[in-house]
Amino acid sequence: MRITVLSGGVGGARFTRGLLALLRDRHPDGHGGTTAEVTVVANSGDDMWLHGVRVCPDLDTLMYTLGGAVHEEQGWGRRDETSRVSADLAAYDVGWDWFTLGDLDLATHLARTQWLREGLTLTEATERLARRWDLAGQGVRLLPMSDQPVETHVVVADAEGGGERLIHFEEWWVRHRAALPALRFEQVGLAASTPAPGVLDALTSADVVVLPPSNPVVSVSTILAVPGVRETLAASPAPVVGVSPIVGGAAVRGMAAQCLATVGVDATAEAVARYLGRRGPDGTPGLDGPGVLDAWLVDDVDTDAAAALRADGWRASAAPTLMHDVPTTARIAAAALALVGA
Amino acid sequence: MRITVLSGGVGGARFTRGLLALLRDRHPDGHGGTTAEVTVVANSGDDMWLHGVRVCPDLDTLMYTLGGAVHEEQGWGRRDETSRVSADLAAYDVGWDWFTLGDLDLATHLARTQWLREGLTLTEATERLARRWDLAGQGVRLLPMSDQPVETHVVVADAEGGGERLIHFEEWWVRHRAALPALRFEQVGLAASTPAPGVLDALTSADVVVLPPSNPVVSVSTILAVPGVRETLAASPAPVVGVSPIVGGAAVRGMAAQCLATVGVDATAEAVARYLGRRGPDGTPGLDGPGVLDAWLVDDVDTDAAAALRADGWRASAAPTLMHDVPTTARIAAAALALVGA
Repeated sequence: MRITVLSGGVGGARFTRGLLALLRDRHPDGHGGTTAEVTVVANSGDDMWLHGVRVCPDLDTLMYTLGGAVHEEQGWGRRDETSRVSADLAAYDVGWDWFTLGDLDLATHLARTQWLREGLTLTEATERLARRWDLAGQGVRLLPMSDQPVETHVVVADAEGGGERLIHFEEWWVRHRAALPALRFEQVGLAASTPAPGVLDALTSADVVVLPPSNPVVSVSTILAVPGVRETLAASPAPVVGVSPIVGGAAVRGMAAQCLATVGVDATAEAVARYLGRRGPDGTPGLDGPGVLDAWLVDDVDTDAAAALRADGWRASAAPTLMHDVPTTARIAAAALALVGA
Repeated sequence: MRITVLSGGVGGARFTRGLLALLRDRHPDGHGGTTAEVTVVANSGDDMWLHGVRVCPDLDTLMYTLGGAVHEEQGWGRRDETSRVSADLAAYDVGWDWFTLGDLDLATHLARTQWLREGLTLTEATERLARRWDLAGQGVRLLPMSDQPVETHVVVADAEGGGERLIHFEEWWVRHRAALPALRFEQVGLAASTPAPGVLDALTSADVVVLPPSNPVVSVSTILAVPGVRETLAASPAPVVGVSPIVGGAAVRGMAAQCLATVGVDATAEAVARYLGRRGPDGTPGLDGPGVLDAWLVDDVDTDAAAALRADGWRASAAPTLMHDVPTTARIAAAALALVGA
């Protein structure tokens, strides 16, 4: 079964790890073999140049999580991480000292930067990095949404000047914990970007497309906004199912509620589904373009949302969606696939 | 007293540290004060891009040595260095695994790379890095020879192809320990480079110019080969004194003998002086252009060399020149300055 996942960082990575476990469980050999062909299209809109190296937060979280090297409690970064370089770097007064570049994480950035500077595309550099984590051996192909640099910035009110100023998404997210009111997002390079090789094909040739519980605004919608992606997904023969990242009116983790507020969407499981929109001639468009979902899985606490969506023609159901561990997450993946008969 | 030093890495850095100690000793306050105005023009021809960051071996050795942070036994790199990033990077199979990028050293490269990518010149980035090491507080201004990238490559015989191939100087030096016969050096970018701001002025306005015991071929001559430097030094009103890096027919450290062999110069204290050439209308040109020296200090074991040079019209003398520690090195600096009456 070919499955394509449009993923942000922590939530998407954990979901994909559970999905892979499910596919291994289902494999007829009964010994953890896999016939999975899972293409993960990662948001690369949080990427940035920092201290001269290219940092790709979501791609790295996916690699580390699927490669068994992630810092489990934190959800991102490497296990047994240290910050010897960062600590010394601070003595040079280079700024961004609130953003800790872990030593092991830095090795990834250096390898990527070397290859990008040698002329490889981000897709090619990602494929090389992924070799170490044996993603191919697990039936996974990891793709950035685009080979062009796209960087999400946040327009915030400038308290002093009375005007507006632009800060990098990571500064808003990590330094300000999204507490600085965001007026809007500006995604530098997004309108002129093109989908990375293989992305559109992964949307049309898949047996199922899954939107895992990633940030619907800055992760999922950023991928969808790469010109051609949203339209291709809306028209794909593959069924599309999403898992709500909002449970009981709040993000399970991260600051998706603040992102939703910025684009004027309520932080509810139902509102996020409508924000993304329902596909088909009898569907309803999303806020930013044609609808992309066929089905929506919400948490048990949001049974009402599922009922409201069903009353409106959606395929929707409720199940436990908190990803406590890999077996739990595999069951969530199974529930999502079941919604579209897969 | 304004002194300008044309320096490579380890030898030049240790000499300069001794020179600064001498100037503090001579200061009338008797408490380590300094009125030194020492400009160090560093070879930047060993610089390279490695894993996407800019590595400047000689500038860094100078900073760490003068800043009290150098790995004393090794002569380069940081004290208490570790290689956590390098070790992890090796798992990505990026090559250059024989070149260890220390974690603390990497912090320097990251800061520099950030500033270069922001559009600062190498001179400006070096000045910012030097703040941490309080070079200005010691009366030292550290300049790269040029703001343009210059990279020394080594042409070696290609055993398989029967032809030639080019490798970066650091590969020849660090990986092959200069044991691979070098046919010649090719310095990419050198002919088109210009002296960094302040370099020519430091040669003409100095009270003394010193060539410390640095590698005469790949360090000193590389600085001299930046268009304008050799001619300016040859015509400068400042006296120029050099200290031989060759003692008893061999390099004190490093592989200067192999470099001298490559340019057809004997590894003797006398031959190196003649390679650099003697200034003035009654002087003799060096191998690569007008002579740049007035005086030459050799080691006690090379008294014959000093005599031979004196017989030929040079100012030359012999003294202990092995830089065992800072006080010893201060005495070497004093002997060098005495040769030109400073």
